[in-house]
Amino acid sequence: MTEQLLETVARVAEPDEAVSIDELRLAARNSGLPLEALRYDVTPLGMHYLLVHYDIPHVDAGAWTLRVSGAVERELAISLEELRSRERVTTRVTLECAGNGRARLLPRPVSQPWLEEAVGTAEWTGTPLAPLLAEAGLLPSAVDVAFTGHDHGMERGVEQDYARGLSVADATAPELLLAYEMNGVPLPPQHGAPVRLVAPGWYGMASVKWLREITVLEEPFDGFQNTVAYRLKQSADEPGEPVTRIRPRALLQPPGFPDFMTRTRLVDTGRHVLTGRAWSGMAPVSGVEVSTDGGATWAAASLGPSAGRWAWRSWSYEWEAAEPGAAVLCCRATDEAGNVQPVEQPWNRQGMASNLVQRVPVVVRAPQT
Amino acid sequence: MTEQLLETVARVAEPDEAVSIDELRLAARNSGLPLEALRYDVTPLGMHYLLVHYDIPHVDAGAWTLRVSGAVERELAISLEELRSRERVTTRVTLECAGNGRARLLPRPVSQPWLEEAVGTAEWTGTPLAPLLAEAGLLPSAVDVAFTGHDHGMERGVEQDYARGLSVADATAPELLLAYEMNGVPLPPQHGAPVRLVAPGWYGMASVKWLREITVLEEPFDGFQNTVAYRLKQSADEPGEPVTRIRPRALLQPPGFPDFMTRTRLVDTGRHVLTGRAWSGMAPVSGVEVSTDGGATWAAASLGPSAGRWAWRSWSYEWEAAEPGAAVLCCRATDEAGNVQPVEQPWNRQGMASNLVQRVPVVVRAPQT
Repeated sequence: MTEQLLETVARVAEPDEAVSIDELRLAARNSGLPLEALRYDVTPLGMHYLLVHYDIPHVDAGAWTLRVSGAVERELAISLEELRSRERVTTRVTLECAGNGRARLLPRPVSQPWLEEAVGTAEWTGTPLAPLLAEAGLLPSAVDVAFTGHDHGMERGVEQDYARGLSVADATAPELLLAYEMNGVPLPPQHGAPVRLVAPGWYGMASVKWLREITVLEEPFDGFQNTVAYRLKQSADEPGEPVTRIRPRALLQPPGFPDFMTRTRLVDTGRHVLTGRAWSGMAPVSGVEVSTDGGATWAAASLGPSAGRWAWRSWSYEWEAAEPGAAVLCCRATDEAGNVQPVEQPWNRQGMASNLVQRVPVVVRAPQT
Repeated sequence: MTEQLLETVARVAEPDEAVSIDELRLAARNSGLPLEALRYDVTPLGMHYLLVHYDIPHVDAGAWTLRVSGAVERELAISLEELRSRERVTTRVTLECAGNGRARLLPRPVSQPWLEEAVGTAEWTGTPLAPLLAEAGLLPSAVDVAFTGHDHGMERGVEQDYARGLSVADATAPELLLAYEMNGVPLPPQHGAPVRLVAPGWYGMASVKWLREITVLEEPFDGFQNTVAYRLKQSADEPGEPVTRIRPRALLQPPGFPDFMTRTRLVDTGRHVLTGRAWSGMAPVSGVEVSTDGGATWAAASLGPSAGRWAWRSWSYEWEAAEPGAAVLCCRATDEAGNVQPVEQPWNRQGMASNLVQRVPVVVRAPQT
């Protein structure tokens, strides 16, 4: 057991290897969006995805203080009350885990085994980060800003408080929030109470929960989560590239009704309006295409109105299910920067930022009499 | 695929068979209690376990009506407003899924693969069911009362709305509620909005969500969920016994901090106060024992105050972790009826009502300098 705790490299499953109890244990803790919840513009509390590296810590809101230190003109120590008295902003933001889709990859990197449900959209209320950093006064030598949470654990042999760094340019973007409310209520414990960072457009790892410290650095941040965990690489021994902004993705709300065990959908022949959501942290979504033949042919879906730059966008597509039989429904998003979801898996060693198109198996049946 | 949908018997995994994608897909949807949330008397919204057989339906609360029909003197059709104007009661109830522990069984019945996290405690507010049934007037010929939800799906070849029956005696017990609030807010969609049954003491399958109809029957209810799904049996071809009330169980809040991938706990040598919860639907909890040597020896834990008959009870135990090395922590509950948690698995063909003792692997280490 101790040997396993000291393994420094994540494992890749054998090609025919099923899911392990370790992976199942993570899946049982880290909850995903039930896909029928794609019907909601804003994900109701309890259905937003949740990824917790270690344990959900208990943080006393009354005693909570956020420290801002390092390469600043003046250090700050801010109470929750002080934070709440600052400028108040609410932003609708779609967050997605960087590991979403990992369990669909072949071979499968062994970690939290998301299929495609690690996403959610919330109304986050808080205060913009940039004015607070301006108040502290970043020194001209400032390079990165590190955000440290109260959550503590061991990961590949490294004991740590969860921490992530952003460049000064990224950290001072106007959309970053120190959030203390989610969907109009105080942050639930599992989403980072009392205060978390929300970095719109970035995969969820950047939005540090249970925030306790902001440290301005004169060197690039070299913490585990930036330099080891959230990296795109093909082999274990290369440094790789950082995981950053959310790649375009569309998901469809599975039509009809499910079989309990397989989650295969049953739909009657006839017309169905397929609906779903699409998002990209890289640029606004410009289009969604749907395939009802497993990706052989594609047709344009209709986009709903934008709900702001950082929230997913609804889409719909009329499907005539003419003949009984099996079908596979797919959808894919494109953004204004020309990024398109791939139909071939974007495999990488740690299973990061996979936006492989979703495949929804359905059985079309003759109308029941 | 169609053949798989028509399988009428649930499968049992081969002894060495790992978790399938079908099981993982269910685990990704059906969220469990993160064990550190055992610290809360009342589970915060979003951390209570959730088991949804089919899809979470969208039910319009404004148009919602509860029908009461069958062997009654007068049929009723009740709006949400009318329901809310009736006697209002709040009860703290621990609910547990009947499938909790299934994925620990060897061989493993293939279904929703819970480890031990399918539990939660909420404050349910609603109106007692018994007076409403009295108002409808049960005929002397009444035998069972069936509760039908709006959730629709296919299960082992049977298309159905989720429905469960209770005997008249069980259905008219004073503790049963038609609940419309959870922890002081309207029921979230995933917990049965706008109204669900809450049957304290029973495994969760009895507490029908998205309730739409109550039917009083003059014959025993023969629906799938009573006669096929929730049965205790050793072989696939026997009828088995019904799953009813929650067997005693204790869980401990894992101490120390976790390794990300294995969830193994790291604790320093020295004194630790182990805490947890215990419950039984069969009788009040009378004791909890703790083992720090994997079940070889047991010692009594201290019980906290009762929080009412239907809620879990806290307990604590002082553990002196004297020597560095691996250890396995266990706990087991006993109730006033003399039911004790087993240390050998209570295996059955469908993996129901397993209350096998929890095992929490820890690594004790010398204090860090």
